[in-house]
Amino acid sequence: MARMAETPKRRTENFIRTVPDGDLRERLVCSDCGFINYENPKVVVGSVCRWQDRILMCRRAINPRAGFWTIPAGYMETRETTMEGAVREAWEEARARIRIRDVLAVYTIRRLSQVQVIFRAELLDPAIAAGPESREVALFRWDGIPWNEIAFPSVHWALNHDRDAGDRATIATQTNPPGEFGDYPLETVAGGL
Amino acid sequence: MARMAETPKRRTENFIRTVPDGDLRERLVCSDCGFINYENPKVVVGSVCRWQDRILMCRRAINPRAGFWTIPAGYMETRETTMEGAVREAWEEARARIRIRDVLAVYTIRRLSQVQVIFRAELLDPAIAAGPESREVALFRWDGIPWNEIAFPSVHWALNHDRDAGDRATIATQTNPPGEFGDYPLETVAGGL
Repeated sequence: MARMAETPKRRTENFIRTVPDGDLRERLVCSDCGFINYENPKVVVGSVCRWQDRILMCRRAINPRAGFWTIPAGYMETRETTMEGAVREAWEEARARIRIRDVLAVYTIRRLSQVQVIFRAELLDPAIAAGPESREVALFRWDGIPWNEIAFPSVHWALNHDRDAGDRATIATQTNPPGEFGDYPLETVAGGL
Repeated sequence: MARMAETPKRRTENFIRTVPDGDLRERLVCSDCGFINYENPKVVVGSVCRWQDRILMCRRAINPRAGFWTIPAGYMETRETTMEGAVREAWEEARARIRIRDVLAVYTIRRLSQVQVIFRAELLDPAIAAGPESREVALFRWDGIPWNEIAFPSVHWALNHDRDAGDRATIATQTNPPGEFGDYPLETVAGGL
């Protein structure tokens, strides 16, 4: 994740809530210039990366959830594909070179209006190293995963969905586990993944 | 798709291109107040909806590509899941009640920085009707699909991926066909899906 400051100041004194012509919903519209401030879900791309029976994880160096473990994932950039984004994040966070296998899961974190596209991937080389946003990186066997220090609910989901998938060549892409929206209390995951 | 005006005016005279602290890329930053104008990919959600051996399609009443045929799809709203968004779009565009089966595809339209999450779905009732953004709606057998009047490349992809999937219970989620990014000339699909 290459964006550390996701709390921009925005001058909103001229914005009013109204339904623009041809729309069905209220939007924030500038009463001065007519600019419509559409609020859009954000896309996170990431991967569960395997090296033999081990899984690549990163201990976060930055907030939210500094010190906790995650899979390589972060905000998708413009002009890249979801797969390119996942490959980029693995490099940025863990200096990992990976090959994407398939789409493991598409999760929605409702409170954050975040869509997470998570791939299955293979590590091409076990030489990994912490990028600037990671305190350390490691390859864990299932029983060695630091389960009590996982950064986000969706990391639990992805690890379990990857384990369920096993080595099967064709897997059904998963979505949120039933009834789960990743809506941890704000103070726990302020700012989201 | 509930948004007809996607070309907002934005006052950018104070914006400069610079790499914010802790970031890796240039962003548009307001030199006055420090606001960082992150540009994010947008999420489109939609579905290939089947009724027996027929597929639901909508002839667009609005631009881009008014008069051409598409599957029910549109911009995901905040605070909804991808599946809720696909269900909403089927209702808005075709007054169709559907049940989502699984994730058929995750496409990226690179030029538009658009991620499309397309589901397989079943129509619960063949009673359909054009919503405000559709000129007409119809249930087509494969051979009756108006192939020469399809609105967007990704509609071709989704129809073919759905056909490839057939009635299999477990399918591998598809991504862009090799080498295809949906990057039709601007004048053809101005504004995107």
